[in-house]
Amino acid sequence: MTTNPIPAAAPSVARLIRELNKLPGVGPKSAQRLAYHVVRLPEEEARALSQAIVDVKDRVLFCSICQNLTDTEPCTICDDPRRDRSQICVLEEPLDVLALERTGCYRGLYHVLHGVISPMNGVGPEDLRLKELVGRLEKDSVSEVIIATNPTLEGEATAMYIRRHVVPEATRVTHLARGLPVGGDLEYADELTLSRAFQGRRDL
Amino acid sequence: MTTNPIPAAAPSVARLIRELNKLPGVGPKSAQRLAYHVVRLPEEEARALSQAIVDVKDRVLFCSICQNLTDTEPCTICDDPRRDRSQICVLEEPLDVLALERTGCYRGLYHVLHGVISPMNGVGPEDLRLKELVGRLEKDSVSEVIIATNPTLEGEATAMYIRRHVVPEATRVTHLARGLPVGGDLEYADELTLSRAFQGRRDL
Repeated sequence: MTTNPIPAAAPSVARLIRELNKLPGVGPKSAQRLAYHVVRLPEEEARALSQAIVDVKDRVLFCSICQNLTDTEPCTICDDPRRDRSQICVLEEPLDVLALERTGCYRGLYHVLHGVISPMNGVGPEDLRLKELVGRLEKDSVSEVIIATNPTLEGEATAMYIRRHVVPEATRVTHLARGLPVGGDLEYADELTLSRAFQGRRDL
Repeated sequence: MTTNPIPAAAPSVARLIRELNKLPGVGPKSAQRLAYHVVRLPEEEARALSQAIVDVKDRVLFCSICQNLTDTEPCTICDDPRRDRSQICVLEEPLDVLALERTGCYRGLYHVLHGVISPMNGVGPEDLRLKELVGRLEKDSVSEVIIATNPTLEGEATAMYIRRHVVPEATRVTHLARGLPVGGDLEYADELTLSRAFQGRRDL
């Protein structure tokens, strides 16, 4: 036990503040506010939160097919007979699956890389779930791989790597359109987005 | 169990997202990000967070003297013989004790109200820990009550109520100075703050 950096707080409160402070985006002030909120929470709600944290660690595993987080093996998407097995959408993170599923516009399968190639951060292709993608492409008849990595330098480099070294030449590989965000303002679009939107203009 | 509002997430992840989403200042997006962070956390760190939540509920109680949150009875501040027992600083919330302790400028005792008088929200004087303050003022020899409620309408109304109805007339009652925040910019100060700073001007 280290010394109490929040001497005026009760030790159990100080410990909760420290634990909450470790979470991403939770600074010392928010950690304090959250901790006092938990103190005031009804007993059963605090227990539900505590239990949910333990359960997620106990139950969650990676789907052996798409590598997404799941409680079941395979995950509900890979197991769903209504999904189109000829399309695989490649994503960086599990959160990206949620985002795409919310759109309701895609009925194929996913493949979660759990990262991007990033030499700066020491992440190479071997650190991503690419072997598993190779295995799927060999085994299943996939007609299109949609690469939906983030529109960042690293995301695009990863997309290029997958096109060149992972997917067989004959398979169609697409990536998501770049352009103006819907509801956005042309005036405030950055030059790169605007030039991509211009290059990608479509007939009306 | 309600239906899963995050259908693409594993049920245990979806449940954690829902629980986190209930916390103040944690929207659906932050809840997702936090949940996936917990999934990636080492086992022992997740357990430490979960345990800290349960422990805080099991161990925390209100100090019978100052009403602050504490693991011990009385709290470490009320129990500290080096604190000046002739001063009581009255605060709205336990977080305010932390804020004042961090300044290191105060060596007296505290009294936490756990709220402010707010007719709009149905909070009257009887809902605050005022009876306990009356008891202390009767029992102990207190020479100064420093009211450090927030500089809001409700905080000032509560301060006035305490001055008029709670503290004996003979006892000195002070409140914190209003003025320009240090490091702030006169140009951006609101009129009320600026006029209070002007009225409270001091000789150099």
